[in-house]
Amino acid sequence: MIRRINLEWKVGHAPSVGVSPERWVPAVVPGAVQLDWARAEGWPPYWHGSNCASYRWMEDVFWTYRARVSSGACSGGERLLFVCGGVDYRFDVIWEGQVVHEQEGMFTPFEIDLTDRAQQGGLLEIRLYPAPKAPSDKDDLKQARLSVKPPVAYGWDWHPRLIPLGIWQDTYVEVRPPAHFLDCEVTYSLDSTLQTAHLETAVTASPGADGREWRWTLMAPSGGQVARGQGRLAGGRGRDSAKLENPELWWPHDHGSQPLYVATFELLDPSGQPVERRNVRMGFRRVKLVMHEGAWDYPSGFPKSRSHPPITLEINGRAIFARGTNWVPPEIFPGTITTETYRPLLKLAHDAHLNLLRSWGGGIVNKEGFFDLCDELGLLVWQEFPLACNPYEDDPAYLRVLDTESRSIIQRVRRHPCLAMWCGGNELFNSWSGMTDQSLALRLLNRNCLDLDPTTPFIATSPLDGMGHGDYRFRDEHGQEVHQIFLKSNHTACPEFGCPGPSSVEYLKRFIPESELWPLRADSSWGIHHGLGAWGGEATSWLCLPALQHYFGEPAGLEALVAQGQWLQTEGYKVIYEEIRRKKPVCSMALNWCYNEPWPSAANNSIVNWPAEPKPAYHAVAASCRPVMASARIPKFSWIEGEEFEAELWLLNDSPAPIPAGRIDVVIVVGDLQAEVGKWEHPAASPNRHVRGPVLRWRLPRPQGSDRFILRLLVDGIPGRDSAYTMPLKPVDG
Amino acid sequence: MIRRINLEWKVGHAPSVGVSPERWVPAVVPGAVQLDWARAEGWPPYWHGSNCASYRWMEDVFWTYRARVSSGACSGGERLLFVCGGVDYRFDVIWEGQVVHEQEGMFTPFEIDLTDRAQQGGLLEIRLYPAPKAPSDKDDLKQARLSVKPPVAYGWDWHPRLIPLGIWQDTYVEVRPPAHFLDCEVTYSLDSTLQTAHLETAVTASPGADGREWRWTLMAPSGGQVARGQGRLAGGRGRDSAKLENPELWWPHDHGSQPLYVATFELLDPSGQPVERRNVRMGFRRVKLVMHEGAWDYPSGFPKSRSHPPITLEINGRAIFARGTNWVPPEIFPGTITTETYRPLLKLAHDAHLNLLRSWGGGIVNKEGFFDLCDELGLLVWQEFPLACNPYEDDPAYLRVLDTESRSIIQRVRRHPCLAMWCGGNELFNSWSGMTDQSLALRLLNRNCLDLDPTTPFIATSPLDGMGHGDYRFRDEHGQEVHQIFLKSNHTACPEFGCPGPSSVEYLKRFIPESELWPLRADSSWGIHHGLGAWGGEATSWLCLPALQHYFGEPAGLEALVAQGQWLQTEGYKVIYEEIRRKKPVCSMALNWCYNEPWPSAANNSIVNWPAEPKPAYHAVAASCRPVMASARIPKFSWIEGEEFEAELWLLNDSPAPIPAGRIDVVIVVGDLQAEVGKWEHPAASPNRHVRGPVLRWRLPRPQGSDRFILRLLVDGIPGRDSAYTMPLKPVDG
Repeated sequence: MIRRINLEWKVGHAPSVGVSPERWVPAVVPGAVQLDWARAEGWPPYWHGSNCASYRWMEDVFWTYRARVSSGACSGGERLLFVCGGVDYRFDVIWEGQVVHEQEGMFTPFEIDLTDRAQQGGLLEIRLYPAPKAPSDKDDLKQARLSVKPPVAYGWDWHPRLIPLGIWQDTYVEVRPPAHFLDCEVTYSLDSTLQTAHLETAVTASPGADGREWRWTLMAPSGGQVARGQGRLAGGRGRDSAKLENPELWWPHDHGSQPLYVATFELLDPSGQPVERRNVRMGFRRVKLVMHEGAWDYPSGFPKSRSHPPITLEINGRAIFARGTNWVPPEIFPGTITTETYRPLLKLAHDAHLNLLRSWGGGIVNKEGFFDLCDELGLLVWQEFPLACNPYEDDPAYLRVLDTESRSIIQRVRRHPCLAMWCGGNELFNSWSGMTDQSLALRLLNRNCLDLDPTTPFIATSPLDGMGHGDYRFRDEHGQEVHQIFLKSNHTACPEFGCPGPSSVEYLKRFIPESELWPLRADSSWGIHHGLGAWGGEATSWLCLPALQHYFGEPAGLEALVAQGQWLQTEGYKVIYEEIRRKKPVCSMALNWCYNEPWPSAANNSIVNWPAEPKPAYHAVAASCRPVMASARIPKFSWIEGEEFEAELWLLNDSPAPIPAGRIDVVIVVGDLQAEVGKWEHPAASPNRHVRGPVLRWRLPRPQGSDRFILRLLVDGIPGRDSAYTMPLKPVDG
Repeated sequence: MIRRINLEWKVGHAPSVGVSPERWVPAVVPGAVQLDWARAEGWPPYWHGSNCASYRWMEDVFWTYRARVSSGACSGGERLLFVCGGVDYRFDVIWEGQVVHEQEGMFTPFEIDLTDRAQQGGLLEIRLYPAPKAPSDKDDLKQARLSVKPPVAYGWDWHPRLIPLGIWQDTYVEVRPPAHFLDCEVTYSLDSTLQTAHLETAVTASPGADGREWRWTLMAPSGGQVARGQGRLAGGRGRDSAKLENPELWWPHDHGSQPLYVATFELLDPSGQPVERRNVRMGFRRVKLVMHEGAWDYPSGFPKSRSHPPITLEINGRAIFARGTNWVPPEIFPGTITTETYRPLLKLAHDAHLNLLRSWGGGIVNKEGFFDLCDELGLLVWQEFPLACNPYEDDPAYLRVLDTESRSIIQRVRRHPCLAMWCGGNELFNSWSGMTDQSLALRLLNRNCLDLDPTTPFIATSPLDGMGHGDYRFRDEHGQEVHQIFLKSNHTACPEFGCPGPSSVEYLKRFIPESELWPLRADSSWGIHHGLGAWGGEATSWLCLPALQHYFGEPAGLEALVAQGQWLQTEGYKVIYEEIRRKKPVCSMALNWCYNEPWPSAANNSIVNWPAEPKPAYHAVAASCRPVMASARIPKFSWIEGEEFEAELWLLNDSPAPIPAGRIDVVIVVGDLQAEVGKWEHPAASPNRHVRGPVLRWRLPRPQGSDRFILRLLVDGIPGRDSAYTMPLKPVDG
């Protein structure tokens, strides 16, 4: 039987590689050296106020973990293995003073056989190198351009400069019998009709298992055994194959169910009894990136060259409109992340009718719990490699690490049916990165994906030609609002757009010291937490004060400012999501920047505050992402009494079902006044097709003492499809 | 010593795979079954008149080659090998009735060890399958979409339907000592300064060579030995490495010299004496595809995403403007091609100042002689894989053959310094092909190029976004002439544009029967040889009768028609090449469609008639491709007496040298009249930079009894930079 032994770790730091730490403090594994040190020092939370500044020196020293492995842990041919899921970032493993393993890269797990070395027990150490830093004229993300270290930690406009280091994945010592599995995997290919799956199982095992029999079964979601096989291990390997007719197909949650099969692998002893059992969960789906409907018709004449690469997701033969979001690391320190970190965030994403998460390349590739939950919840994942906003050069040493790390990532993630596509990284074809199709890093990633996961699409970066990118404000410097910007847009996909808003007052008070709350100052926690000065000068950034002043004048105080900012964010996201949805089928994706955040923000484009608290905008996005709903195309945000209002009515339908004809009543609410201003007897909608309705126009009434009015669309008999939009209404003499 | 034994081949055909041919005829190897059969039958040339029609049945039968291998060919441990450079297309090798090898694909050579089988001699057969044909509703290029058979032979608008089959590369039996080389290769990487080359040598050898020493030397172009090394073979392999300081760099001929190094590999016997010697020629160059100057400045504001992939060739750190052409198969039957087929064609290309040949994906990948000559002549090669104009699907069987074939192609060609870039194939992103970046065939080719030749660029297809494609006429259906079309164009490269013209009367008479020469009829040799009916209906095609009629009215006869057509082609190509050159540096390539042709054409975009006879347009292209020359931008072709003529003067400079200031005199010639109409005191030109001059305008004189005038630009003191343009001039009352 396999026995796991947890180690008692301590950690300390030293100024250089040859020097031993003077002080050792208890370490939590997995975790981060920064958190261990802060705990030992009794520091206040890194996420409060400007506390994170005191962590800065930690990126430049040599940290060492150590743990004692006791003697006599294994006997009788058993193997003693040190098993490590990942160390962030470059490190040596040292046994009793001897380097036994060297590695650069956090995504490649490793095992070290200590059986012979550890008979007498001994000291195991993991010595970390300082955070990798390529030459740069200042401490910024450019320092990450020669490593596979997620660059976000080098400082972003929503992430502090705080570079985690340490053991970030499960790590322990394990005692195994001489014969044991190393890896068990099942892969499949679907025939063109999706009615037959060709299964391939592959196991690897210890040398002691050679000659042993192994067997496998596949259990259907309903519990019945639907395939099985067996074989004998030779040269550490075993392979088998089988055919499965009519596999139940995995779908994103808004298009079908998420049937998950379980393959069970058993290693048998000479008497035929199982001595080890492993379960691998899987799902059957075919995913492609295809040209949008009508794309080949343009240009209409010779030479009829396509102009934009394909970016419409086709799942199991059906084009899917992706209503989604950009996922960023949910914690600054990935070692603290568990499945329970992901669970509430992913449940909220599912409940907001989102079906695609773009796991952005500036951050980590998530732990297994993320993908397991996405498999269960029917959330598609666009997975990027850890490259973002940098010119990753054709540097041989960098490419070697990228090769190893990307292979580890692909081999870990490929089994998940939620995986919709691979992507080289974020904004690599933009001028600040300057990479191209010729960049060897991107050719290497494309190759590794083809070699290891050929049936999942790969794109080089985002955005690609044809895709939208931004804007990230409710109102731009030319006075254009999201209403006009997105009406004019003509993209194949919108993988990033943002509309920022402040966090609630109650939330702000949790991490901004009372004395800094008001008035606003960029050189306070408002700046450190991205509300001011993150970009565009000290006066602006994610609070977007110029837009607030334009619509509302000087704020009366913090509560008023927050309410105004949240109004813009909620209504802005509604406008954008619904307008991009109306661009279907040319446009295939609406993914806001961003979903979550790694620590508390004063203001951000996020719709869920750290760690998992929905902002008001979350509920707006959820409303605008219902697969079937009434929607109004509104030309602008702010209105005046007596002005002719107009709204074009739509019935949005992303569902695979037809929608019968029905009626939509249009009501305007001003203060206590509620008036019906029109209705639309809409025709039936075909599956996955919207219906465009009439433009209704009417004069706006007096504000009735209110500062706003609400446009409500009431769907006859189906309140769940109603919609509402709240806009400023000013008196004509106001 | 290695001894080569040529075999006496015969060939015959049968209706199905189990049936033996009834009649055997002598076969020329390498060659084609069609030519063998025609020779035996005493048929007239396939390229004359409509003779090719009688070859049609040959694509659908089973051809078998056979040759007897005599006994006693080898002794004393010698090995007897059947060595075959390539068989077109699918075949079995049969020894004494037993299938000993099966293969699909013409580009993968193979060897079969016959030592044990052939002690008593025996019958060796190569049985060909019929030409591969994917389902299609008619006999056209779509039939080639599930194979790696060059599709051009299935019929093109300048190639007849005539699908070659047979042994097309050198094929023989060889007796080798037990210890012999299998392959010897040298690869290199250049450091970023181009001043140090890191050499890697690799040899493979027979099992009998294990334990033997081998050595290698590298000779500089001037003859001195500059590197050497040695080793001992183990497991059939040997590797060595060395460093070479200050390698002489290989350049395209208009930018520098073509220093070629020779690596010599020797296999030693136990006494240290060489028993086998192989020479491998190589050159040092670094090639990249880079964004054009200024590309990253657009768009000027956020989001600053690049819009077009890079297509500017950079050789040894210098951006090169490619004045080139599209190379098509020089023969319908590739088995007949030798180095002497290539030599006159490539010499002409070099002499026309062309520096890049796009070896188009519809045809074969050329034999080694082509690349050897390009290495020597300084001609860059854009090499495509054999995919063109088809939707090559994600079909596993097709992808397996493509994988093997593409690896063979890359391994053969990668050593040549002339190789500038790999390309997946022709027009694969156009609507008629419908392939995308997601197509597994293109991802596979990108991967194989990265694995086997990582320092040579790869692009998926041509055209890519930003590149021009066409036009292929002097005057389009909207009345736009090449003058206006290319003035307005704004491309990153022009890898295909054409301007068709008829062949000379003398040439036409060689292959069009006298009775068919005049009047023109599409259902005659004029049609079969592409002058009429190849596209756009029977009345048009490459003769472009509507344009001729527009400028010249009804032709008086064949001689007049040919003269008029050649006038349009010569002046058209001048206009296009020079206008595209003026678009530097945004545009980086001007490659006309096409250079040569596989058989005699009545009219074609080609500038060299089959087999290697320059058309008048060849000389026009040669004039317009001089690296340094005077050039005039002229707004249109045809003029009237008294009309205000205008020409913008340019000094074109693609050379790496600066051009001193000087004077260009502008002269107009009408009949016997010659008048100076202006001059330009041009400033100095920087290296690789053009100088744009003034626009000169003047009234055109009376035609003086001529139908044309000549605009001449005379470069003070350097007649080799003069230019001349000939245009129609009509009397005002004409």
